[in-house]
Amino acid sequence: MLAEPFFNRHPGIWKMLTVTMCMVLLGCLQAHKLQGHVSIILLGATGDLAKKYLWQGLFQLYLDEAGKGHSFSFHGAALTAPKQGQELMAKAQESLSCPKDMAAGDCAELKNQFLQLSQYHQLKTPEDYQALSRDIEAQVQHEGLWEAGRIFYFSVPPFAYTDIARNINSSCRPGPGAWLRVVLEKPFGHDYLSAQQLATELGNFFQEEEMYRIDHYLGKQAVAQILSFRDQNRQALEGVWNRHHVERVEIIMKETVDAAGRTGFYEEYGVIRDILQNHLTEILTLVAMELPRNISDSTAVLQQKLQAFQALRVLQRGSAVVGQYQAYSEQVRTEQQKPDGFRSLTPTFAGILVHVDSLRWEGVPFILMSGKAMDERVGYVRILFKNRAYCAQNEKHWDPVQSQCLPRQIIFYIGHGELGGPAMLVSRSLFKPSVSPQSWKEMEARPGLRLFGRPLSDYYAYSPVQEQDAYSVLLSHIFHCQKGSFITTENLLASWVFWTPLLDSLAHEVPRLYPGGAENGHLLDFEFSGSQLSFSQPQPEQLVPGPGITPMPSDFQVLGAKFRESPLVAAWPEELISKLANDIEATAVRAVRRFGQFHLALSGGSSPIALFQQLVMGHYGFPWAHTHVWLVDERCVPLSDPESNFQGLQAHLLQHVRVPYYNIHPMPVHLHQRLCAEEDQGAQVYAQEISALVANSSFDLVLLGMGTDGHTASLFPQSPTGLDGEQLVVLTRSPSRPHHRMSLSLPLINRARKVAVLVMGRMKREITLLVSRVGHEPKKWPISGVLPSSGQLVWYMDYEAFLG
Amino acid sequence: MLAEPFFNRHPGIWKMLTVTMCMVLLGCLQAHKLQGHVSIILLGATGDLAKKYLWQGLFQLYLDEAGKGHSFSFHGAALTAPKQGQELMAKAQESLSCPKDMAAGDCAELKNQFLQLSQYHQLKTPEDYQALSRDIEAQVQHEGLWEAGRIFYFSVPPFAYTDIARNINSSCRPGPGAWLRVVLEKPFGHDYLSAQQLATELGNFFQEEEMYRIDHYLGKQAVAQILSFRDQNRQALEGVWNRHHVERVEIIMKETVDAAGRTGFYEEYGVIRDILQNHLTEILTLVAMELPRNISDSTAVLQQKLQAFQALRVLQRGSAVVGQYQAYSEQVRTEQQKPDGFRSLTPTFAGILVHVDSLRWEGVPFILMSGKAMDERVGYVRILFKNRAYCAQNEKHWDPVQSQCLPRQIIFYIGHGELGGPAMLVSRSLFKPSVSPQSWKEMEARPGLRLFGRPLSDYYAYSPVQEQDAYSVLLSHIFHCQKGSFITTENLLASWVFWTPLLDSLAHEVPRLYPGGAENGHLLDFEFSGSQLSFSQPQPEQLVPGPGITPMPSDFQVLGAKFRESPLVAAWPEELISKLANDIEATAVRAVRRFGQFHLALSGGSSPIALFQQLVMGHYGFPWAHTHVWLVDERCVPLSDPESNFQGLQAHLLQHVRVPYYNIHPMPVHLHQRLCAEEDQGAQVYAQEISALVANSSFDLVLLGMGTDGHTASLFPQSPTGLDGEQLVVLTRSPSRPHHRMSLSLPLINRARKVAVLVMGRMKREITLLVSRVGHEPKKWPISGVLPSSGQLVWYMDYEAFLG
Repeated sequence: MLAEPFFNRHPGIWKMLTVTMCMVLLGCLQAHKLQGHVSIILLGATGDLAKKYLWQGLFQLYLDEAGKGHSFSFHGAALTAPKQGQELMAKAQESLSCPKDMAAGDCAELKNQFLQLSQYHQLKTPEDYQALSRDIEAQVQHEGLWEAGRIFYFSVPPFAYTDIARNINSSCRPGPGAWLRVVLEKPFGHDYLSAQQLATELGNFFQEEEMYRIDHYLGKQAVAQILSFRDQNRQALEGVWNRHHVERVEIIMKETVDAAGRTGFYEEYGVIRDILQNHLTEILTLVAMELPRNISDSTAVLQQKLQAFQALRVLQRGSAVVGQYQAYSEQVRTEQQKPDGFRSLTPTFAGILVHVDSLRWEGVPFILMSGKAMDERVGYVRILFKNRAYCAQNEKHWDPVQSQCLPRQIIFYIGHGELGGPAMLVSRSLFKPSVSPQSWKEMEARPGLRLFGRPLSDYYAYSPVQEQDAYSVLLSHIFHCQKGSFITTENLLASWVFWTPLLDSLAHEVPRLYPGGAENGHLLDFEFSGSQLSFSQPQPEQLVPGPGITPMPSDFQVLGAKFRESPLVAAWPEELISKLANDIEATAVRAVRRFGQFHLALSGGSSPIALFQQLVMGHYGFPWAHTHVWLVDERCVPLSDPESNFQGLQAHLLQHVRVPYYNIHPMPVHLHQRLCAEEDQGAQVYAQEISALVANSSFDLVLLGMGTDGHTASLFPQSPTGLDGEQLVVLTRSPSRPHHRMSLSLPLINRARKVAVLVMGRMKREITLLVSRVGHEPKKWPISGVLPSSGQLVWYMDYEAFLG
Repeated sequence: MLAEPFFNRHPGIWKMLTVTMCMVLLGCLQAHKLQGHVSIILLGATGDLAKKYLWQGLFQLYLDEAGKGHSFSFHGAALTAPKQGQELMAKAQESLSCPKDMAAGDCAELKNQFLQLSQYHQLKTPEDYQALSRDIEAQVQHEGLWEAGRIFYFSVPPFAYTDIARNINSSCRPGPGAWLRVVLEKPFGHDYLSAQQLATELGNFFQEEEMYRIDHYLGKQAVAQILSFRDQNRQALEGVWNRHHVERVEIIMKETVDAAGRTGFYEEYGVIRDILQNHLTEILTLVAMELPRNISDSTAVLQQKLQAFQALRVLQRGSAVVGQYQAYSEQVRTEQQKPDGFRSLTPTFAGILVHVDSLRWEGVPFILMSGKAMDERVGYVRILFKNRAYCAQNEKHWDPVQSQCLPRQIIFYIGHGELGGPAMLVSRSLFKPSVSPQSWKEMEARPGLRLFGRPLSDYYAYSPVQEQDAYSVLLSHIFHCQKGSFITTENLLASWVFWTPLLDSLAHEVPRLYPGGAENGHLLDFEFSGSQLSFSQPQPEQLVPGPGITPMPSDFQVLGAKFRESPLVAAWPEELISKLANDIEATAVRAVRRFGQFHLALSGGSSPIALFQQLVMGHYGFPWAHTHVWLVDERCVPLSDPESNFQGLQAHLLQHVRVPYYNIHPMPVHLHQRLCAEEDQGAQVYAQEISALVANSSFDLVLLGMGTDGHTASLFPQSPTGLDGEQLVVLTRSPSRPHHRMSLSLPLINRARKVAVLVMGRMKREITLLVSRVGHEPKKWPISGVLPSSGQLVWYMDYEAFLG
């Protein structure tokens, strides 16, 4: 257990924690019944966020709850000395406002009450925290109350978290029977590792149940409404909230402002960490998750959210387009005193294509987009449904309520934009939604206004009965222990697991420059093909190009047509894969035409993945129904192990094409519940299968790779088996894990009609150079033993491997 | 050989045919070089079609070709006596017209020449045909020419075909060295059998190469352009003419006229035979087929068309919606002297959803629609592309050329409608197409005109340089031996194979009545879900309902909750399948939650197909990744045999969900290259696999069916194996083919945690009644032996099986 050392250092805390946990549950279940005293400690009470939102949110909480019999005290805290701090806090509290419909006198009175319940504390040392705790206890006792719980709101920079957490834990927890809640604000780290580290540290001081990580987007009314909407309209949505009916989901957050004045923060974060990793991803899970039966069951909600995270398909470099408004680098240079030549690579615009690999959403594009210096300020989630109808009359006569051919969509309008505030829109041709009349009212007509391709009148359109600030909404949820609106450690880490690889791969990418505002025109439009995203238009030349220009394939000549005296195809990776895929298809078509079937033996590893994707996406004439797929080699792990070559083949190729079950031939590495046991004769079984089905045991095509040590298939240097002899299939040992392998033998490979060796990447430069010079020395370099006796050998190399 | 008797009866014809075939090829290859005399015989020379189109087409051919050195003669023929026939023919030829740009004098002269080359023949008896042949030969000889070939155009009702064909074949073939072409007009039969019969009859007299079956739609300029367009724009279309980019294809033919005056014909044919089976299907193949390298290679074109036919997914009853304009039955009553109560079931409107099961088109809906009494007259093919883009700026600023977010489409506008004639439209945001400037010119602007959701100005729009009649186009193709524009026997039969089952299943269907014209409103709009088509709106009550009202599920009470003392679920088929699917999912979810996996044993046959479809379409939470699929029984055929139960399971379930390869457990009926040999111990192997993987050999769920003889699984009455004893898996014999089977045994089935027996359809009434009364008599009725020892048995029966 990670936390053990801490607990060892603090004997006796076990009991306290146990009690606290029970009380937490009690607090959640019975908040309304046992109305004791609640202390709310706002750390960072004099800061911007406190000033802008948090004091107002706390005042709103007081207005909503105080009348129900609770007793409150509000403790502002900061590092500032008491007197000055008190003054600053008073200033931060100056602009508190009451609901519009409240009489001015009532407002003034309530405001006054609230301020009287507020006091400032300097919190620096452990003693300060002890003193605060004593103050609270004394106050509670003095007023003859009992303590229900304490809420600590961390409105402080993350570097201060650990100290504060330690102090709260050791000196400021409420007594037994009362609950503790700590509220944490983003950023929660900067990538997976830093987030994990922060989470581990906090975990030393707080229970998971005690932590409320805030993403204030989850408090925005249109976002907070997503699950309720799905719940209230279960019946109407049941049949359509899935890949068969949803065309796409757009989750968008556009800003007109730029980062001027905040470049210090922005340089470290950029748009993906600032907006997409948290806000837009949280929204995505609300749309994509399976709906629990009872959406007020926070545990069920959070569990389903976690599952939605886990179903996100890994992002590739190609899943993103990034941009940077043109003035940004100059702003950074000025604000951060950077040298003249400095150019930032931080994206201020990103478009991301996310796929959710669940049966419900497979294939539906989730488009996430955010940018600064855009043409308008607006945020929305748009679920566009597929047009599954044919309308038999001329389009002139289509009726927006009756026609199923006009766009049908549901929009959760987060705010700003042409509507100017939160809203919910449902196409009239879809269904009339159920909405809670306490929270949402029908919008008034706005003739002439078009949204998402249709006039506003084509929608059932709702706006909030009363606009509420996100922080007020979330403070109320914290008070009522509605954990579903907050980010658990698991969900936080799942989000970073999802985003970190993309962020890493974008680190050195040059973003497209854009002028900003309406001038952006179509420059930032992007489109997708498969899971590959690209800008729709080429980068115009008048915009300053970024550093590091990549040479184009056309800059090179094909350098030689031979490698080791066999034909060589050399190209840039994309072109190379495309040529190889074309050659394989041509070979397949010829084989099927001549023999009625095509026997293809494929290697595992990562290089062929791009090839498989190419075959899946671009080769419609491929005779898959007549293709037999064999394995060149396999690791001695169960077929279901993520490490098995077969698993990769299944995920990237077999699930997407129609090879009949009985034409798929995994290697029998797993027989009688054990792996590659000599006695089970798996190699012989596979050899027999080959002999029985493949004429003359000559595969039509064998695809090989080459390792940096010159191995190929799973035939490693000095292998005692497989390099010569009679055996068709052999067990071998690899120097790297898992050590045990099964492999086609060189003699069998060399019986093939055609062998293609695919070599890609800078890592292969040295071995490529070496192998170009050596003779037939399979003991030293097994790849040098590949030479089909009557078939053809072709090398496919990318320039990185070849130009070594 | 089918044709043998004919050849036996006509010894010596072999030589002639051989010569003819060579000459046909010669004629095709060298039509321009050897410019001999061509005789064109128009059978039905005085009929409507001849009058309206054919004489004009022949005149056009004469204008186009006579100048190139050919010699022509035109022979009108009919049953009418010479004098009267000559007069009628002259009348039919009266309105011949020249191209607009020809001088009146030239026109008159050419017309005169043409009429002088035309003569009338009465063709009734074999002697008449002999006389015609002699006339032609004499004329050729007299003018010192040599005969190139003869074209016989059958513009006569199909019942006359055989006689005419026999006469031509025996008495009117040209001599050796000259070719024969016969042109046939639809209808080519009425369903598969009649088409095959007609084809066989014609095959007795003509070689396939000699026959030109006309579908005049293939001569319409926009249709004739489809392949050329695809060819000329190969590069632009290569990446997008596929399922990843095409959203849908609409092939539409709307008429405003109704069938008044033609109900005699129409009652026999209806809209599907009249328009969809031929015209729209031909167009579909032009869009869907793989494009041969050389589109002027007719053989390659026809072969690819045939392959496109073969890739069409079998239509279900649910693939169609049909309607009938309200006045139709009354028109039939009047015109056909039907009794007052007569109501026709002939559809005058049909919408069909076609899927093409090729890698290129899988999943793309092809919508075919045609109707009489519609709101407008128009025909078009519309290829709508998917929107794969996100446009970053407000829609107000989208530019129709640059924006990839506005609809992108290619339309082959066949004619009529708002454009008033043939046209080709390509969205400007798609690409600028290459078109042949000899044939197509850019259209003039028509401000205000919107088509398919966008103003005309959003398209590259082309119209023909010169409008040509379809028959003129096709007559030219016949003359130039361009067989690609005609329907081969193979293609004809393939089309009927495709349509006949649907036509059969619609025979007793009551079409939706519609008022006709603009009043149809949204009444005929339809939509699809999976491959199921339905009208978007319910049938309004004021329209007369058809005969035969089906009782609704709600009309019945659940009649009893028990069958053979086990729980019974009884419902209408759709509801039943839905309940069963829900129960299976719930069982699966529970099993995976408890044990981490779900072992499901499934039966073959047709009843479970609907269940599989339901599971595929509606159950997104199903834990397929943790499900093991076993077979209840299997036929002793190779797994790849269409008869194998596994094959059905693969096609309807496994290809659509993600069960890992190694969780799929087909029965090993095929070992060591033989089927169910006792020595191969396949049953024991399967039993071992079950023992190894399924805890306690207790399946979580076994799905059974029940045969009309009381069999279940492949356990038949009086089976010596499998009804008791120790064996888990047994070889058995079935009374029906294939006789050899492998099956789970009753003792193994009864170890399951849950057994579901699905019984559906009227055919099961008797056995259901019987089994409800018998005791435990597995020898007589194996199904009576199903009684899980500690698990649960549930019967799922539809009302048809149960209400016996």
